[in-house]
Amino acid sequence: MKLILASKSPRRQELIRGLELAYSIVLYEVDEAFDPSDNPEDIAQKLALKKAEHYPQVIGNDEVLLTADTIVWINGKVLNKPETEEESFAMLSMICGNTHEVFTGVCLKTQNETISFSEKSKVSCKNLSEEEKWHYIRQYKPFDKAGSYGIQDWFGYTAVERIEGCFYNVMGLPVSRVYEELKKIKKK
Amino acid sequence: MKLILASKSPRRQELIRGLELAYSIVLYEVDEAFDPSDNPEDIAQKLALKKAEHYPQVIGNDEVLLTADTIVWINGKVLNKPETEEESFAMLSMICGNTHEVFTGVCLKTQNETISFSEKSKVSCKNLSEEEKWHYIRQYKPFDKAGSYGIQDWFGYTAVERIEGCFYNVMGLPVSRVYEELKKIKKK
Repeated sequence: MKLILASKSPRRQELIRGLELAYSIVLYEVDEAFDPSDNPEDIAQKLALKKAEHYPQVIGNDEVLLTADTIVWINGKVLNKPETEEESFAMLSMICGNTHEVFTGVCLKTQNETISFSEKSKVSCKNLSEEEKWHYIRQYKPFDKAGSYGIQDWFGYTAVERIEGCFYNVMGLPVSRVYEELKKIKKK
Repeated sequence: MKLILASKSPRRQELIRGLELAYSIVLYEVDEAFDPSDNPEDIAQKLALKKAEHYPQVIGNDEVLLTADTIVWINGKVLNKPETEEESFAMLSMICGNTHEVFTGVCLKTQNETISFSEKSKVSCKNLSEEEKWHYIRQYKPFDKAGSYGIQDWFGYTAVERIEGCFYNVMGLPVSRVYEELKKIKKK
């Protein structure tokens, strides 16, 4: 079984390596627009499905395509990747002293079937001072991260006090669920 | 403020580095016996305190000594570090398909004060096959780990489906709590 990972996220690549799976990476552009009136489970899952549908090649006999999308959800809205330092600061200010939810939608696609699901984790963060938030933004430049933080970096170490659910889901991929689904595919 | 970390755990060292704290390491032997009739919070906290009491040097004016002990608690008992492959297999068999608790006791000691606390996280694990458990034991040799697993390695990726509480506490140090307590010490 050959896994094709359609993601440029270094965190997802690291997680797949941790499962001891051989994989190759394929990158292509997909419009990540979504319907903001959808619930967050559906938004994440539909984005993962859309990425799988746009795979520009034919899936081989022994191949599994893996696509995923992670969204941060707070106060009934999605937090995307921040584009400026100010936007990053605004996102961290929403997240700090609050609990938010992270949804990762995953799609596993073979020649014969498409499995997709969405996994939720709750994340509770402490307050950080303005100075600490600016330190984080300037040192860690979280512009490639939904919600403007990484649970595996300085922000996760200092501000995240509690999670409920799968930790690796917050990093970008619910690996234990993915491992389970891949075992089912293998058995078929 | 200079942090002195009394731990040979590479995971604790990595977490302290992630807080961007300068630290030095000091190693000395402490008898890790505990009273099995104590509750797990107390066992972990007392072990951390004992490690601080046995620090063989004088704590300097600008120094903070950090000691910690992590225990895995299941069915009313502590799971220590396994000494043999068979013991490791027995521990993984208890943990898999079950929820256990991880307690890390921490002590921060300066010239003037001693702060100690215990932090709890709940960890839910899926069943793994016998073959998977033996694969883990032989490839990852979890003999330096309480409960015979690492949440940051293959076992954590495949078997841990859910946690409640601080993830880094399960790795060996509740970093966000430690960061908070160190800030309080600095302000004094």
